Amino acid sequence: MDRWQNPDWVKQMALRLDFSRMMADVIGPEHGITRAEINELISRAGVVAADIAKRRQTNELGFYRLPYDVLTAGNLVQIATALREKCGAFIVLGIGGSALGGIALFRSLCHPLHNLLTREKRGGGPRIFFLDNIDPLTCRALLDNIDPAKTIFNVVTKSGTTTETISQFLICRRMLTAKLGKKAAKDHIIVTTENQPNPLRRIAEKEGYVILDIPENVGGRFSVFSPAGLFPAAVAGINIEELLAGAWYMEQRCRTGDIWQNPAYMAGVLHYLADTSKGLNIAVMMPYSDALYQVAIWFRQLWAESLGKAADISGNPVHYGQTPIAALGTTDQHSQLQLYMEGPYNKMITFLLVENHGAGLAIGQETGNDYRYLAGHDLGEILNIEGRSTQLALTAAGRSNMSIILPEVNPFTIGQLLFLLEVQTVFTGGLYNINPMDQPGVQASKDYIYGMLGRKGFEPKAEDAAAWQQRKNPYVIS
Amino acid sequence: MDRWQNPDWVKQMALRLDFSRMMADVIGPEHGITRAEINELISRAGVVAADIAKRRQTNELGFYRLPYDVLTAGNLVQIATALREKCGAFIVLGIGGSALGGIALFRSLCHPLHNLLTREKRGGGPRIFFLDNIDPLTCRALLDNIDPAKTIFNVVTKSGTTTETISQFLICRRMLTAKLGKKAAKDHIIVTTENQPNPLRRIAEKEGYVILDIPENVGGRFSVFSPAGLFPAAVAGINIEELLAGAWYMEQRCRTGDIWQNPAYMAGVLHYLADTSKGLNIAVMMPYSDALYQVAIWFRQLWAESLGKAADISGNPVHYGQTPIAALGTTDQHSQLQLYMEGPYNKMITFLLVENHGAGLAIGQETGNDYRYLAGHDLGEILNIEGRSTQLALTAAGRSNMSIILPEVNPFTIGQLLFLLEVQTVFTGGLYNINPMDQPGVQASKDYIYGMLGRKGFEPKAEDAAAWQQRKNPYVIS
Repeated sequence: MDRWQNPDWVKQMALRLDFSRMMADVIGPEHGITRAEINELISRAGVVAADIAKRRQTNELGFYRLPYDVLTAGNLVQIATALREKCGAFIVLGIGGSALGGIALFRSLCHPLHNLLTREKRGGGPRIFFLDNIDPLTCRALLDNIDPAKTIFNVVTKSGTTTETISQFLICRRMLTAKLGKKAAKDHIIVTTENQPNPLRRIAEKEGYVILDIPENVGGRFSVFSPAGLFPAAVAGINIEELLAGAWYMEQRCRTGDIWQNPAYMAGVLHYLADTSKGLNIAVMMPYSDALYQVAIWFRQLWAESLGKAADISGNPVHYGQTPIAALGTTDQHSQLQLYMEGPYNKMITFLLVENHGAGLAIGQETGNDYRYLAGHDLGEILNIEGRSTQLALTAAGRSNMSIILPEVNPFTIGQLLFLLEVQTVFTGGLYNINPMDQPGVQASKDYIYGMLGRKGFEPKAEDAAAWQQRKNPYVIS
Repeated sequence: MDRWQNPDWVKQMALRLDFSRMMADVIGPEHGITRAEINELISRAGVVAADIAKRRQTNELGFYRLPYDVLTAGNLVQIATALREKCGAFIVLGIGGSALGGIALFRSLCHPLHNLLTREKRGGGPRIFFLDNIDPLTCRALLDNIDPAKTIFNVVTKSGTTTETISQFLICRRMLTAKLGKKAAKDHIIVTTENQPNPLRRIAEKEGYVILDIPENVGGRFSVFSPAGLFPAAVAGINIEELLAGAWYMEQRCRTGDIWQNPAYMAGVLHYLADTSKGLNIAVMMPYSDALYQVAIWFRQLWAESLGKAADISGNPVHYGQTPIAALGTTDQHSQLQLYMEGPYNKMITFLLVENHGAGLAIGQETGNDYRYLAGHDLGEILNIEGRSTQLALTAAGRSNMSIILPEVNPFTIGQLLFLLEVQTVFTGGLYNINPMDQPGVQASKDYIYGMLGRKGFEPKAEDAAAWQQRKNPYVIS
């Protein structure tokens, strides 16, 4: 029996949401939220919840089904297991939602120095890299330092048209072909994409690459529980069945329409009220755990791209969107806390707290007199004391903050956490009456890119860009 | 002759500030700044500049002298050179300003995969680690995977009292003593601290550690050109003389009181006007270069901690402070750009652009039909095209943005960039009439930490914290 099939263990591992420090009776009436304000949203929340339920049934919100897709997970584990033994480096070519989920899983659930460890200490698996930018120095540095014969490239793009990812794919394919020959090269590329005849899929089918499907109606930023996130995780040796079990468990918890019982809905309501009625248009996510930092980076995309919208569903101009920020405790106590304590009242902070870090590091007794107060303490204990101290100091200063508490960091709790945040995002989009699933604002930049790269049909954009370069510019200091 | 002694080369390597896309005649009157608004600040800017000049003379602003301290630099290089051959791992124990400068230099000027390279490919030097958090998993992971006999710990804390750093120091000293004996252990610790009899310095003197001085009146976040930043850089093999030459060059450029000629003052004026009269209270720094991402993280501390203040110099409550954000191009086009394009008009974006990335990576001609538009292009070229496209798209949408342009990334240009940002920060603090050199807001959290750790004199804080833990809390969903 897997541990997640044991109800006692599951109960111990349940995430908790503590939102007391968002409330007016704790941080004061000026910036705090009242029960009445929350209750006023109950009917609106009911409408949003009903709409979500309807769109789940029609599978418009594909991510809701992912925790149930254990067949795919089993298949991924099989492919990954065979591959782990053979390859020395596993490189994900992807960007945005095609990389952030995998990175979050890798960083939260693998050894902090994974790639520096010996193969044995890595559990027999490969080094894992995510090339989520096209910086030529970084890409060349990596390609110059791997053995192509022992490397697998996982090309992840839903549409098969992402300029950055396709550029990398073309470069890596050329290198593989040159070094290994065309026939062998095909075994070093695995494509993760939609099950539609897009250009990448056509190439993959023609060349005979392994293809992993991103299910229908699963957008990039909601794809962590699809093969986009799960396959790299499985290759890294993460127990993806337990991860899905955690997501499934949270999915169950987030079914109730009672916002006082639903952690995702309550978190959504609090963010919405904080932004629209308290002026808190910045949402900081601040884990006190290195492992969770990339979860905050993953959430940063989810929140910004889903809720940052110019128009609501009816087309009215709104320019909504809390700005998400990733911070890290204790590190950012020495960088951002000054601003959070004394700057404008425009932020709410969500702490991600870990009760049991699973490793101790004792300071011991020989501290000398000046450092006597540290004697007998443990590093994990101090980390958590600092988290509590920061919460208390912010609360005493009337600064809105709340906590998501993880009993420990493991696939089950990470599955819960990521799924919670996905539901929270979709629900909050409903409260704002915007579409959380699209990203129309990035097209303008893409059009200029195509224009400057000389793509047919985008000539006017190229001309715009050239004219801009040629203009007289009096506003330069050189 | 070093290349930075060649005036032609220096001129080629000069940074440029292009602020056209902040201006009303380019992005429109609603969010743009006019020449008149800038000129209205000339007299105020003159007062601030005069105040800075005065405080430079009294050496209150110690960081201004650092580019001139070539004797210290020479000494650091000597120590570092001897050490590079001997040690396999160099670990900085520091947090906030004691780590961020060193990390920025290491990431911008060393190989992207430095720690994964063989010793030979690393140029004969050690692996470099910055332990800037007290996560027990991370710390243990590192300590379990180094050879103490070949490791140097550089303990960096100006005050000698930083809880996180001292905790790490005590743990590492204990480990060294246990494994190597007390006598040998002392050669594995180098302390960087103020030249004052603080607790750490007393221990260092008693035990006989090498001690490096942080000069007077150099605060943590302004210490990158002191041994706090320079020594790790030198150990990593970075040419710190050229770095200081770049800082010195920028220091010269930032002497003029004419804000239309002074890049740091103009950048300060633009940030100030954007925040106070255009409602742009978020300052995004977005490099299009992986190497510069940690510069943005370093700046994030500088800007937040210097300008995020509850009171002005006269003690009036103000709650000032733009919120700084670090983003990365092209990666964050697929994460944050949607929000930047369509969300609230509350952001200005400063791009860090690199003209010549110093490495190419060609896509080649065999793209197939669907990807024909990528044929013949190079990855660095596409990176820069994407940067230009993002600027154009933002500009067309009336979104304020500007650029700092680096001809290439090298110690000379990085020296310029960091010094420019330091002067910009101090100058902007003057415009806000706040003290950019203190951080009074972090004390409250420290007091709670001391209380919970059982330090004498902080018992009431411990009681507060205990009472908080015991309170009835109806705002938990579990």
